Amino acid sequence: MFQQITILGPGLLGASLALALKEGGLCQRVHAWSRRAETRAQALESEWCDAVFDQPKDACTGSELVVICTPVETIVPLLEQVAPSLATHTLVTDVGSTKSIICREARGTGVNFIGSHPMAGSERTGMAHARADLFNGAACIVTPLDDAADTDIARLHQLWQAIGMQVTTCSPEQHDEIVAHVSHLPHLLASSLCSYLASKNPDWKPLSGGGLRDSTRVAAGDPILWKQILEQNREEVLRAIDGFENELHALKTNLLDQNSSALIAQLERGKKFRDSL
Amino acid sequence: MFQQITILGPGLLGASLALALKEGGLCQRVHAWSRRAETRAQALESEWCDAVFDQPKDACTGSELVVICTPVETIVPLLEQVAPSLATHTLVTDVGSTKSIICREARGTGVNFIGSHPMAGSERTGMAHARADLFNGAACIVTPLDDAADTDIARLHQLWQAIGMQVTTCSPEQHDEIVAHVSHLPHLLASSLCSYLASKNPDWKPLSGGGLRDSTRVAAGDPILWKQILEQNREEVLRAIDGFENELHALKTNLLDQNSSALIAQLERGKKFRDSL
Repeated sequence: MFQQITILGPGLLGASLALALKEGGLCQRVHAWSRRAETRAQALESEWCDAVFDQPKDACTGSELVVICTPVETIVPLLEQVAPSLATHTLVTDVGSTKSIICREARGTGVNFIGSHPMAGSERTGMAHARADLFNGAACIVTPLDDAADTDIARLHQLWQAIGMQVTTCSPEQHDEIVAHVSHLPHLLASSLCSYLASKNPDWKPLSGGGLRDSTRVAAGDPILWKQILEQNREEVLRAIDGFENELHALKTNLLDQNSSALIAQLERGKKFRDSL
Repeated sequence: MFQQITILGPGLLGASLALALKEGGLCQRVHAWSRRAETRAQALESEWCDAVFDQPKDACTGSELVVICTPVETIVPLLEQVAPSLATHTLVTDVGSTKSIICREARGTGVNFIGSHPMAGSERTGMAHARADLFNGAACIVTPLDDAADTDIARLHQLWQAIGMQVTTCSPEQHDEIVAHVSHLPHLLASSLCSYLASKNPDWKPLSGGGLRDSTRVAAGDPILWKQILEQNREEVLRAIDGFENELHALKTNLLDQNSSALIAQLERGKKFRDSL
């Protein structure tokens, strides 16, 4: 599938992708760059990595595909840095959780960039937790702009499908609306619930059950990464919060007014949706 | 430990309790009553059950301990029904998720009642899912009123500890404040998130990941049971919603005002709490 690819920022996602491609015989060589010398050394000792570089542009030389796996705020700055050293046919993608700002700004760099969002991951970040089956069965959204070449879109589809993902295409704006609801909203609710409970009596903690643990698991995610994601998807996230606030307000009103039938209807709507996931 | 106990309403919790007591050699005989003939027949075929009865009061005759395992709204009505047939030394408890209303109204029946809330369970309800280890390692709150006998409180502690639970004692009011926050609030947030997302494009569903599934698992609970729980704990639940709404509003304001440091601080407070669970 590929002679040589480059992973910029090999953490859990980048290293897992390289591992999956190598194990599947889909890629001959993997070049990697990381900002930290320690991570570069760790990469070089990993089975998926053939060479590491001190400079991101050097890591990209000669690669048919470059995958940027850094936090969302650093994707475009990196793209600007490597742009001059890319061959015109080189396809660049990323694994960021937001797409509108990244894809819009990427266009300005002149690079042949199409955004991707493989929706796999874990609270356990870092290269050390990489596994070849991380992406298997999960969804991936590819977000080409209007002027993207069909052949490049098809290549990206093949890439993610080859490692077991269910690939969907939509615009960066549609992507951001969707993830604001199905990913960012659940995250910030879990996080807000935890920060609220942190203000309460710590003796309550041992009295919480599996329900609280499950429903707040995502709140263990990295605060810096999540701050970047929420800020990059600010408009859609604010809209999703507003919609949720209305729903919660309706529940509160039903409870206040002792409107049992409306309360049951709301709980039933929730259960039906959950059962359908 | 007990010669004979009675389980009124043997669903997941009641049948699991009887199973755990029998397997641990802690109880000689288990009597059971269920409203539905089908459930009574199913109980009679179960290894934990020695006899079933058509009338709740008949099931209680001769038992040292009666455990009411029905939905919260029917606990006190059942207590009133069986009161005349109980021996004065018979200890009665329940497994309800709310305590203030139940314990206050139970006092009026003259029965020797002390509330319990074993915080174990599953979205998979019903006798068929009963298992002896359901309670193992989970928390249990015992909620005696001021006039409860120390020996009875001690007997209840022994009961729940014998099947592996971590037992805490507090007042019914304290209990309701605690569970409003660590159980009912997480539940209604998950349910509201799901009922909100049910109003969105169904095509988004396959694009949701493990995060949404985990954080909404509890929303699959029975709507009728949860409506009863929320209504019985109305005041405390409304207070918990208010507190959460303030926290969510603060996050929204931080995002609107682009106050990154405050946003990070909030996400960090949430992560720290979650990591400590």
